Amino acid sequence: MRVPSKLPRESALDPADWEEFRLLAHQTLDLCIDHLRGSRERPVWQPVPEEVAAGFRALPEQGSDLAEVLADFEQKILPYSTGNTHPRFFGWVHGTGTAVGMLAEMCSAGMNSNCGGRDHGAVYVERGVIEWCRTIFGFPESASGVLTSSTSVATVIALAAARLWAAPDSRQAGMSSAPRLVGYASAETHSAVVKAMELLGLGSEGLRRIPVNPTFAMDLAALRRAIAEDRSTGSVPFCVVATAGTVNTGAFDEIDAIADICAEEKLWLHVDGAFGAWAALADAPWQKLTAGLHRADSLAFDFHKWMYVPYDCGCVLVRDEALHRAAFASRPDYLAPTALGLAGGDPWYCDYGIDLSRGFRALKVWFTLREFGIARLGAKISENCRQARRMAELVQQSDDLELLAPAPLNICCFRYAPAEIPEHQLNRLNEAIMVALQDVGMAVLSTTKIGSRLGLRAAIVNHRTRFEDIDQTIEAVQRTGRLLCASGISAN
Amino acid sequence: MRVPSKLPRESALDPADWEEFRLLAHQTLDLCIDHLRGSRERPVWQPVPEEVAAGFRALPEQGSDLAEVLADFEQKILPYSTGNTHPRFFGWVHGTGTAVGMLAEMCSAGMNSNCGGRDHGAVYVERGVIEWCRTIFGFPESASGVLTSSTSVATVIALAAARLWAAPDSRQAGMSSAPRLVGYASAETHSAVVKAMELLGLGSEGLRRIPVNPTFAMDLAALRRAIAEDRSTGSVPFCVVATAGTVNTGAFDEIDAIADICAEEKLWLHVDGAFGAWAALADAPWQKLTAGLHRADSLAFDFHKWMYVPYDCGCVLVRDEALHRAAFASRPDYLAPTALGLAGGDPWYCDYGIDLSRGFRALKVWFTLREFGIARLGAKISENCRQARRMAELVQQSDDLELLAPAPLNICCFRYAPAEIPEHQLNRLNEAIMVALQDVGMAVLSTTKIGSRLGLRAAIVNHRTRFEDIDQTIEAVQRTGRLLCASGISAN
Repeated sequence: MRVPSKLPRESALDPADWEEFRLLAHQTLDLCIDHLRGSRERPVWQPVPEEVAAGFRALPEQGSDLAEVLADFEQKILPYSTGNTHPRFFGWVHGTGTAVGMLAEMCSAGMNSNCGGRDHGAVYVERGVIEWCRTIFGFPESASGVLTSSTSVATVIALAAARLWAAPDSRQAGMSSAPRLVGYASAETHSAVVKAMELLGLGSEGLRRIPVNPTFAMDLAALRRAIAEDRSTGSVPFCVVATAGTVNTGAFDEIDAIADICAEEKLWLHVDGAFGAWAALADAPWQKLTAGLHRADSLAFDFHKWMYVPYDCGCVLVRDEALHRAAFASRPDYLAPTALGLAGGDPWYCDYGIDLSRGFRALKVWFTLREFGIARLGAKISENCRQARRMAELVQQSDDLELLAPAPLNICCFRYAPAEIPEHQLNRLNEAIMVALQDVGMAVLSTTKIGSRLGLRAAIVNHRTRFEDIDQTIEAVQRTGRLLCASGISAN
Repeated sequence: MRVPSKLPRESALDPADWEEFRLLAHQTLDLCIDHLRGSRERPVWQPVPEEVAAGFRALPEQGSDLAEVLADFEQKILPYSTGNTHPRFFGWVHGTGTAVGMLAEMCSAGMNSNCGGRDHGAVYVERGVIEWCRTIFGFPESASGVLTSSTSVATVIALAAARLWAAPDSRQAGMSSAPRLVGYASAETHSAVVKAMELLGLGSEGLRRIPVNPTFAMDLAALRRAIAEDRSTGSVPFCVVATAGTVNTGAFDEIDAIADICAEEKLWLHVDGAFGAWAALADAPWQKLTAGLHRADSLAFDFHKWMYVPYDCGCVLVRDEALHRAAFASRPDYLAPTALGLAGGDPWYCDYGIDLSRGFRALKVWFTLREFGIARLGAKISENCRQARRMAELVQQSDDLELLAPAPLNICCFRYAPAEIPEHQLNRLNEAIMVALQDVGMAVLSTTKIGSRLGLRAAIVNHRTRFEDIDQTIEAVQRTGRLLCASGISAN
């Protein structure tokens, strides 16, 4: 489509008047600072009014004054955030961001660096960040890594490296003539692992879901049996995915013991540490859960969850750099490296993953770790774990609440279950409680199922949460539950 | 690892003194504004000094004053940007960003929305942006789309949908028992298409590289022959990838004719429109190249190249929404939707791609299109095409320069080739010219090979470029070439 422009040729898309732009930009910065500063004072979440939601559809043929665009942002977008900057946002595993992270994103966009490769400052910052990760997680200096949009993509990259290790000609020949590779993960494994297997052409059926024990960790005897059975029937085991912090309950697989099995069986060990890997920085009760993590062949994790970095930023580490590179490197003529100049430098991060053009995600990680240091970040992580433990204690002390799973890390799953309400009404009742707490803007919990029982689930990766927020949330659940029962809503 | 923290418990990672933070944040904003405003005054690129590069490795155990972190950013990172905000940056296809886009990224990080799904403002902005894309590219209202980190990821998503269409049980069963699917793309196709085939387990050998005609467009007779041959030998053709703007020369495949072939042969038509798709907004000579694009089953493109949006932001559109969703949707219990509350809303964007956690990329697209309007953006795109044409004309008018390919869009490939320099020295000479222009910070061109001839390549997706920048760059190439020849460097 083509629409005539009213504007002169050769005017850059830079502000016509930089000082006018500067004024508006500073106003917008204040707006964003006040938004973050006021996180506690707002409702956690509020629905988007229909007329606002409908207002985003018309294609803008002509431009608008920046002041108008910014006013629309202030009135129609900013008030309807996901809510995860609020101290009582505990839904899913949504990170909370920081003001420092916001500054970093502004700086990153100002530089507009493309971190696909080449020789410029942003690439050295990313190398530093990867080096920090290697140090934190005990990976050797020879290991490689790359920042990604998420653990989901990091998992795809890790399993692609594992696939290449198991089927060396798979990049060329595809999987249709390859052996039937099978991987292993617990029944509590995140859906991202299943999606990665599907994407790679290995199929969800290529991932054996191993039962868990009562603490929701993988049953290792069952794992051994499954491997043996697959070998006996002609499938080719290639990989075990251990979970460091399951999404449902925060459970850890026994990584060290799984590493032993992988060594014996000659299998690739991938660890899904989306948020849980960061327990490596926490106090001993939680840190010890990560024992053996340094033995993984690959590790996927996020910065935008428990490192409090703004969305989005994940990372993958791969022990065997050459294999990592071999799984993705592809440099046609137009990307040929040179010894000198901007096209120099090695590695190019596009050789370690899917993206060729890559934003400067490393800067927000660099700002965050430089500003706070890993000691303070580790202390916040420990605090979040103590908050989950506090929540579990409150649940256990209350007659009308029921703890549905241990809370070994930062996740607490429980339900409102007073004795007088029959079991078959509890799932609906607890879902109604979740919605009601969101509706009044008091707290965001999400739900999950533990067996057949729907539970309220708090995943605490929130640096703004205080212990009083935990107490208030539990009280609100009980109060809301009583109100809903009194008005008969649970029976609807 | 664990390091004791000196800091008190329960202090959020918010500034201890918000007004001190505000002051530093405003100074940083001014720094970034001045950086963008001064793009033309700086060298395009300068190497990172060794002592600076080495300074990013030490893991920060304790935090630092924000002022110190920001000073390090100003002195050690900002001066060494990729250079693509400069008016004479023509390397690869690096987008140039805008000040408005920088503001948007700040706002996005301030909100810290997770756009994986659910019911909140950011999701409605993304729906608006996808609606705009459908309108611009003539896709039906029933088509789906999702923003991605890049065209590379968008291509993986599109071909995953195509794979599911051709092999309906492939998500479960993987590719090892599936028919041998083969796709078709021209010899000039971007490496991202090959990488997508590899990632999906289809293999690079599953992508037939069809020869191109003298204008670098796919030879359609050869395409027909290849399809017929594959059918006769038991392979299963499933997809043709047409390129809208090749990375080497900006050539377009004949999309309309390829759509006819796909309709006849019952094949999926994917269009790689990374930058070239935006010619749809340009004046007639370039817009007409996109004829037939609206017939594609899927289309991948970037906002961070020719829509001038800061890194990173790509997009995929898929004609068949149900198929798109079926290729990626996966909602375990902890992601179950609800009718009401934050967990409501449909679609959830995680059902359309790899990422579950997703940043608010849509905001920078929304700011950009609202601020400038598609008319002005289209005019800039036309202008970039005119600049490439101007460059090609200057090359053709010069005895010592040689045009290596037509310049139908925004890319000009040429070389310095004075009659007295023997052919075998020209590749090295032109690479030396590229490096020298970067080294003095005058202009960034990249190189590619057209046949065996290494060419200087200007890809103009730069809203700051003026016609005089084109003239100066050509003069600088000639001057540098003469100097290098005079000092005998080409013979090294």
